[in-house]
Amino acid sequence: MNQPLAVGIDIGGTNTVFGIVDRRGNILYQGAIKTKDHPDISVYMDALHKGVSPLIDKATATGDQIKGIGIGAPNGNFYHGTIEFAPNLPWKGVIPLANLIREQFGFPVEVTNDANAAAIGEMTYGAAKGIKDFIMITLGTGLGSGIVINGQLVYGHDGFAGELGHVVVEREGRHCGCGRYGCLETYVSATGIVRTMLELLREKKTDSVMRDMKTEDITSKAICDAALEGDQLAQEAVDYTANILGMALANYIAFSAPEAIVLFGGLARAGDLLIEPTRRYMNDNVLRIWKDKVKLINSELRESDAAILGASALVWEMKE
Amino acid sequence: MNQPLAVGIDIGGTNTVFGIVDRRGNILYQGAIKTKDHPDISVYMDALHKGVSPLIDKATATGDQIKGIGIGAPNGNFYHGTIEFAPNLPWKGVIPLANLIREQFGFPVEVTNDANAAAIGEMTYGAAKGIKDFIMITLGTGLGSGIVINGQLVYGHDGFAGELGHVVVEREGRHCGCGRYGCLETYVSATGIVRTMLELLREKKTDSVMRDMKTEDITSKAICDAALEGDQLAQEAVDYTANILGMALANYIAFSAPEAIVLFGGLARAGDLLIEPTRRYMNDNVLRIWKDKVKLINSELRESDAAILGASALVWEMKE
Repeated sequence: MNQPLAVGIDIGGTNTVFGIVDRRGNILYQGAIKTKDHPDISVYMDALHKGVSPLIDKATATGDQIKGIGIGAPNGNFYHGTIEFAPNLPWKGVIPLANLIREQFGFPVEVTNDANAAAIGEMTYGAAKGIKDFIMITLGTGLGSGIVINGQLVYGHDGFAGELGHVVVEREGRHCGCGRYGCLETYVSATGIVRTMLELLREKKTDSVMRDMKTEDITSKAICDAALEGDQLAQEAVDYTANILGMALANYIAFSAPEAIVLFGGLARAGDLLIEPTRRYMNDNVLRIWKDKVKLINSELRESDAAILGASALVWEMKE
Repeated sequence: MNQPLAVGIDIGGTNTVFGIVDRRGNILYQGAIKTKDHPDISVYMDALHKGVSPLIDKATATGDQIKGIGIGAPNGNFYHGTIEFAPNLPWKGVIPLANLIREQFGFPVEVTNDANAAAIGEMTYGAAKGIKDFIMITLGTGLGSGIVINGQLVYGHDGFAGELGHVVVEREGRHCGCGRYGCLETYVSATGIVRTMLELLREKKTDSVMRDMKTEDITSKAICDAALEGDQLAQEAVDYTANILGMALANYIAFSAPEAIVLFGGLARAGDLLIEPTRRYMNDNVLRIWKDKVKLINSELRESDAAILGASALVWEMKE
């Protein structure tokens, strides 16, 4: 068919997933290797090559052509094509990832961080199609973000823009992995809502199904499930999370006046549970000119596909 | 000489100032009319035409050509060329300013708000020359801002992006003119530092030269002067202001990772008085990757010229 194809590679702390994607976002072939089994980067590169090459061969057998390789990785730097000091990956320091992959495969390569890749994926294939100004918020263990202005991802002068999980929302608040206090992601993330729930269990006397659970079973999913089943304390934890997220989003709107904010990830998947109160708090707190004007929507990409799609979408942004 | 020239018009609540500017930022001719003497917009347009036309005639007598007219105005909307619901101007509702001026003068016209105009002026003629990613903060009665990313001013999807004075920095904090509580400009602005000083005078017993002053004499300038002369309570007011501004800037950096932040306006003019402690608080609070990396600098435009220069700079950004 001679259509152009993109390779998307998402490097996570545990797994690396990859796939061959067409212009419309169909994943034609996919695979995975363990990231953490390869503490030596050159051994990892060999394993990656062994995993991806057969897929490329299959995909191009019909005459289709690989346009390039897009990579999403924690602490990925778009300008340098590097991974820089990623705490959750096995390789230390600065890894010249784009160069290594380019040498292995011989295709053009772009690298960015996982939240930026998610934003580009959403813009290319998902809920942000046709939207030129939006903010992507990914809710996982932490809170990641990608900011799109005028159809372009914002990288800043150094490639690290869009760290909205590390905006301080509570002075002298919760201690964050970054060493500071009160960052948004210590409240709004899978780990943040668990901290909230544990605090509520300690501080309040309200009955809750979670009182009989072992601490390690109190996950963000368990809290959302309990809230959906009517557990009052779990609902309070969700409301507290929505309140802090809504206020933070109201502030972010004052920065870039986006048309939409897109939520992605585990916490965002519980239907309207989080998004509905977040939208209310956002509109309660935003400057009047934006009241009820900025859309707050859930991602339209399936969680299992999103990482590959996001990384692959980088390829369509490449200059010829 | 046949050089292109720009007309810059800055509409303020009291005065409208205008000038003819060359590509290097020399103001060749300038003038002013009273804004508030003309509550009728069509009478104002006539007065403006009478003021500006003779300057255009003089400037073009040698063969130079007017490329266009740039206008900075409170609540100016770049996309619509309008002034929308400006509380401090005599005209109510939505004023189709660009159309009115185009009809009067017959040149291409662009409109933006005053802080955005200041940012473009700084990028074209001032401290931000050659810098593609920066944030402009204007400290006047309120706090205005203009955000430049990739050499482009950020307007957002509706033309109102960059309202950093209305980021809430203190939940349930000071009441703001926008109707909400705790906005940055209620702390960091000429009026904000006066509120801080009055609070300190009430709450503390520390001696201060300001204790004997009439309330109306306690201006931001008087506070800065007293602080420079060693008044401890005035210094405390400056430090408090710097602390809140520094923390806010640390958060803004997480958004767009700018190379520099430029301060402009009365409060910023007191030499290093405000900027030095602000820089310290900013670096104390910023995410580690940006520590001591983002420049905090004062504007290089003279206050008296800046409004005209900023408005005129819009013209050089016009597409041919």
